Formats: sequence, C-alpha cells, structure tokens
Amino acid sequence: MTKTFALDVTARDGRARTGVLRTPRGEIRTPAFMPVGTAATVKAMKPEDVRATGADIILGNTYHLMLRPGAERVARLGGLHRFMNWSRPILTDSGGFQVMSLAQLRTIDEDGARFRSHIDGTAHVLTPERSMEIQRLLGSDIVMAFDECTPYPAAHETAAASMRLSMRWAARSRKAFDDLGGREAGSALFGIVQGGVYPDLRAESAAALKDIGFEGYAVGGLAVGEGQELMFEVLDHTVPHLPEDRPRYLMGVGKPDDIVGAVQRGIDMFDCVLPTRSGRNAQAFTRRGTVNFKNARHLDDPRPLDEDCRCNLCRNYSRAYMAHLVRAGEILGAMLLTEHNLTYYQDLMAGLREAIATGRLDDFVAAFHARRAEGDIPPP
Amino acid sequence: MTKTFALDVTARDGRARTGVLRTPRGEIRTPAFMPVGTAATVKAMKPEDVRATGADIILGNTYHLMLRPGAERVARLGGLHRFMNWSRPILTDSGGFQVMSLAQLRTIDEDGARFRSHIDGTAHVLTPERSMEIQRLLGSDIVMAFDECTPYPAAHETAAASMRLSMRWAARSRKAFDDLGGREAGSALFGIVQGGVYPDLRAESAAALKDIGFEGYAVGGLAVGEGQELMFEVLDHTVPHLPEDRPRYLMGVGKPDDIVGAVQRGIDMFDCVLPTRSGRNAQAFTRRGTVNFKNARHLDDPRPLDEDCRCNLCRNYSRAYMAHLVRAGEILGAMLLTEHNLTYYQDLMAGLREAIATGRLDDFVAAFHARRAEGDIPPP
Repeated sequence: MTKTFALDVTARDGRARTGVLRTPRGEIRTPAFMPVGTAATVKAMKPEDVRATGADIILGNTYHLMLRPGAERVARLGGLHRFMNWSRPILTDSGGFQVMSLAQLRTIDEDGARFRSHIDGTAHVLTPERSMEIQRLLGSDIVMAFDECTPYPAAHETAAASMRLSMRWAARSRKAFDDLGGREAGSALFGIVQGGVYPDLRAESAAALKDIGFEGYAVGGLAVGEGQELMFEVLDHTVPHLPEDRPRYLMGVGKPDDIVGAVQRGIDMFDCVLPTRSGRNAQAFTRRGTVNFKNARHLDDPRPLDEDCRCNLCRNYSRAYMAHLVRAGEILGAMLLTEHNLTYYQDLMAGLREAIATGRLDDFVAAFHARRAEGDIPPP
Repeated sequence: MTKTFALDVTARDGRARTGVLRTPRGEIRTPAFMPVGTAATVKAMKPEDVRATGADIILGNTYHLMLRPGAERVARLGGLHRFMNWSRPILTDSGGFQVMSLAQLRTIDEDGARFRSHIDGTAHVLTPERSMEIQRLLGSDIVMAFDECTPYPAAHETAAASMRLSMRWAARSRKAFDDLGGREAGSALFGIVQGGVYPDLRAESAAALKDIGFEGYAVGGLAVGEGQELMFEVLDHTVPHLPEDRPRYLMGVGKPDDIVGAVQRGIDMFDCVLPTRSGRNAQAFTRRGTVNFKNARHLDDPRPLDEDCRCNLCRNYSRAYMAHLVRAGEILGAMLLTEHNLTYYQDLMAGLREAIATGRLDDFVAAFHARRAEGDIPPP
C-alpha cells in the first residue's frame, strides 16, 4: 500500500467541492458520509452490507473501544480493521466528545480528562497522548486530535478558554501522533476547530491549527443544540479560514438538510448516528422526509417505503411488512431499516457529488427541498 | 408451477432414507431441517441469507401470525411468501401447540380451543376449520392438521382421550382443507400422530390417520420433557406404522444428536428454534459441541469459532470479536451467530443425506459422536 494521504478536488460549484480523498486503505469520494461504528460494528449491519450502501469509510469511537474491548486487546488481535472485518478506511474520534458528555463522571484539567466508565465505573484517564496512542493501537486511518467540545451555550470568555485548551491539546496531539510513527504508517491526523459561535474565536482556532499543520481540519462543537441557522452561520465564518487543499470534516452532522447546507458551505466529510439509530427506532429517512413505522397507517400498505430507492427493504418488502416487524420487535426490522437509511444517506451524498461535478448544485438543492416539502405519499 | 406434491426416496441406509420432496414452490432435500420463522421472519436473518445456509423450506407459526399481523391481513398483502420475501416452500403449524402452551389462558372442548392473546389479552377461537382457513390464507405449502399436543407425563387414559380428540380433529382438518381448495392449490396437509409414550396408542393414531389419508405424517407430542431415550423408543414404535411413500416429520426436534438419531429411525423433516434462539443467546453449535460466547476465555482468542465451517462468522471473524459483540449486546452478534448455527444445522443435514446416499450412515454417526466427544478446542 502506498503511504499517501491527499485530497484531489476535481470540481467546484460555489463554495462546494467534490473530489477524492486518497488514503493507503482506499479512496473516499467527497463529500462523504461516514456511518458510525461505535463499538466495532455499524449497529445491525454486516460490514459488506455497509459497503454495499456506498460507504467508503466508517467511524469508530475511541471512548467506547478503549473501554470495551480495549485498545491493547484490539491491537493484539490485529487492529480494528481486521477485528471488525472492514478493510477500507476508518476514522476514529479522539474520545473527547464522549468523555465530556459524561457530565458527573469526569473532571478536566490541563493534562486531560479523568473519568469513570459508564459500563463498570472503573477509573480512566484520557490525555492527548493517550488518545493518540489508542487511535494508533486501533490502526485508525484518520486520527482526530484530542479536544474539548465546548458546550452550548457558552459565554465568549468560556468558549475562548475552552478553545485555547483544545489548541494546546492539538499541538500535543500532533507531537504524540508523530512520535508514535503515525505519519510513516500512512495515517492522517486532523485538527479540530473550536470557538463556539464566535467568529473571532473560530478564526483564531483555525489559524492556530494551521500553524501546527494537519492533514485535515474538522469543525467541532456544532450540532450541540445551537440550531441549523446558527450552525450554518458558524460554517460561513469558519470554512474560509481552512486550507483549500485539505479535507474539511463537520463532526456529528447530521440531518439530511444539515448535510446539504454544509456541503454548500464547503464541507467534505460528515458522520452521524441518525441513520443507524433511527433505523433501530422505526424511523426512515426518505426523499420525501421522514417516515415513522410505529404509525398504524402502514399496517395494510402494500407499497414500498420509497419506490425509487435501490435498497433491499424498498425493493423486496412492503410498508406493511416493516410496520409488522417494528410492532413485533423483530431484529430484521432494525436490519432492513438501518440498511435503508444508510442507503438513503449514501445516495444523497452521491447526488451531491454528481451535482457539484456537473455544476448543478443549486438545482439539486432546490429539488431536494421541494420533494421533502411534498411529504410522504398519502395512504392508499 | 406444477401442482404436484410427492416424495422421491432416492436411497436408504437401514431405516434412514434420503430423497427429494417435490412441491409446487420448489424441492426439499430430505432429511430436511426447517428454520423457524415464527412471526414472518427467521429472527435476525434476511431470507436470502437463510437460503444461503442451505434451507429449502422454513416454518411459520399460525398462532403468532393469526394474532399479529393477522391471517386476513397477510392474505390481502399477497400471502406469507410475498409478505416476508421467501419464495420457497413454507410449512405452517396448526397453532395447537402454542395454544396448549398458554396454560391459564385457554380452554379446550370438542369444538376446539378458546384462548386469550399473550400480546393484548383479546379473545380468540381456534378450531380445526379455523386453523385450516388461517393456513390457507397464509398460503402455506404444507399445512398441519389441528391437534392437541398431549402433555408429558400423561396417564394412558389421558393420552388416549387426547389422541382420539386429535384424530377427530384430524378428520375435520382434512375435510376443511379440501373444502377450502387446498389440494387444488397444490398445498399439502399433514396429519400428526399422537399417543404419548404408549406404543398401542401411537399405532392406533397412525392407523386412524392413514384411514383419513394425508400427504405427509408428523410425529407430535415429543421433545416435551420425556428425554432422548424415550423419544427414540417412541420413534422405534411409531415410524414403522407410517406409509413408506410419504414424508415423515418429527415436530419441534431438536438438538443435533436428537436429529441424527431420528434420521436413523426414518424421519425426513425437522424444525426447531434451537439454532436461532441460541444464536441470540450467545450459544454456538459446532461439530465439537456447543460453545458459549459469554465465557471470558474467548475474549482474546484470535481463532475462528470453527475453522472447518463455511459461514460468514467462521470465515471472517475471530472468537474474540464474537465475544465482544455478545458483551456489548450488539445486534450483529445475534445475526452472525444465528447464521452460523443455521449453517451448522444445514451442513449436518447435508452430511446425513450424503451418508445415506452412499450407504455410510453408521460411519457418519460414529464420527459425529466422536468429534463431539472431543469437545471444543482448548484456549490458545
């Protein structure tokens, strides 16, 4: 395998761009959506079926994997790719976001975070250095710098202090990653822009990260309750400060219309639990918006969920069958609906890439919103 | 589709036989194992993956399907095959066994059974006529006569009365099935031999069923706590009374060694929830016996569950990964382990068929028991 990591932007439309992110483990078509494989599995999906939806890369969670099965164990077993039978690229987060979410169970200081496991209460420490070590043990292709996800809302002073801590951690992450041989192994390290909703802090953060130098740049601290309008404003302020020749990743986003708006603003990569979590909770994403299979109106509906969808569920089963599986609590319901939702997300990304490549992004976005506004097909 | 139903016995070895059961929806290689698809799904499996394990036919449960989603609804939606995307043969039970299991919730009289749904407490009636109607509405390829599964233990007098009730119900089932056009539709009706552990009652029951005339004959009322030795004794007494030219189905059996012993005694068809239920409960069936993935000894084991198994789990994942999925409560664990268990069962049936066809059943059975006696491979 060639140990190269590079973004080739092949077309632009407005601020949006499309291209290919080349990694030693395979190419990632951008804009890309990364299904979340928290605990070394994209829930309710076989990896070959994840690939068949169109995914070029998946995401793993450092926090969950360090606790169970443990990073050293995964390394002994040949790394995360082999462990979970996924040979293409994997991005791992730094663990920071999940640790911050533990609220009562963690303390933060300059060194890093101390926390207790949500599984068994055992004490753990996560620092920039340990996060890099874990992600290297897992064999991650794209490693995320360890940061503090600033809560929302946060006063300017609080957001500034939090962002500057993250920037010091970013420098330590860069050093630790390089010392561990991450570059030589063909792995990439991404920095994470913080700064809350404040344009001056976002600019300061982006500049600090560029000074350190990363293979890619993420926008963190969004989709935490600020709402889509404010999220888009932050992107409008932040993306122009990021290098043109490096991938840009909006972390933890999002709903389909969040993704569309962020692609218009120059974002290349996304991850979100929504398609998988919703797939286990009876909710489908479609071109016409969301459909909830707990609703009794589907019980006698012989039609497919979406007649234009290529997925297994839409090709082979009725809405009535899915509604039955949901009511009966059958695992197959989660399997088929997750597969559908991931297919929908991947097809949305493919549509965005094609629209950008052909210079028709505005038309694509207008059609995207128009079809959603129509709503679901009426009952038969 | 040709509306024929016929068993072609192609080879015999002792009392065992192998062949092909021809049905309008496809051939069933015998001896056959039927995965159980209780609620219109073989739990945690896509139907195409059920087929890939080697299953020629699956079983559906009348009791569950009549309550949810309802037989009339399934019929409106095009029948059970279309509903659950399985185009090959389906055998449905009569609902009798599940209704009898309701204990406090049901009453039996000459007409049939009155019971309350375990889901919502609603009142229902199941008679031979209604059971036939439901199974025809579902579009079943092999319909089972409505019977009372005699509890174990039962005194001779009790077993006799219960069996004779089942024989009167068998005659009513035959008439109702024929009146509903089951024969013309290419569907088959199987009678069920009852009589507890009493050879005279089993003989009387078999004779009564032969007088009525069925397309196949099941042995019911076994695997209800009597133990393997007694079950085999009952088969030794019962199978000789069944017609040579019709398929013989041992209902609800069983563990791998139960199946092997029953095949040696001339049984052609089996069903059991064990491979699927165990697959959701961390237990694997292998050539070396059962393996429990809740056991911590697998957590660092890089080896496959069974290196000789062709299934997805054994080809692509370690024992350590499966143990992780089980501990994390991941759906993929149930998916992969169910697929393994069904593959094991189907490969066992294929081995039995091949052994009978080549006149080497005794050797096959000896090797089967010897390998199980070795036990699981020791930890690395």
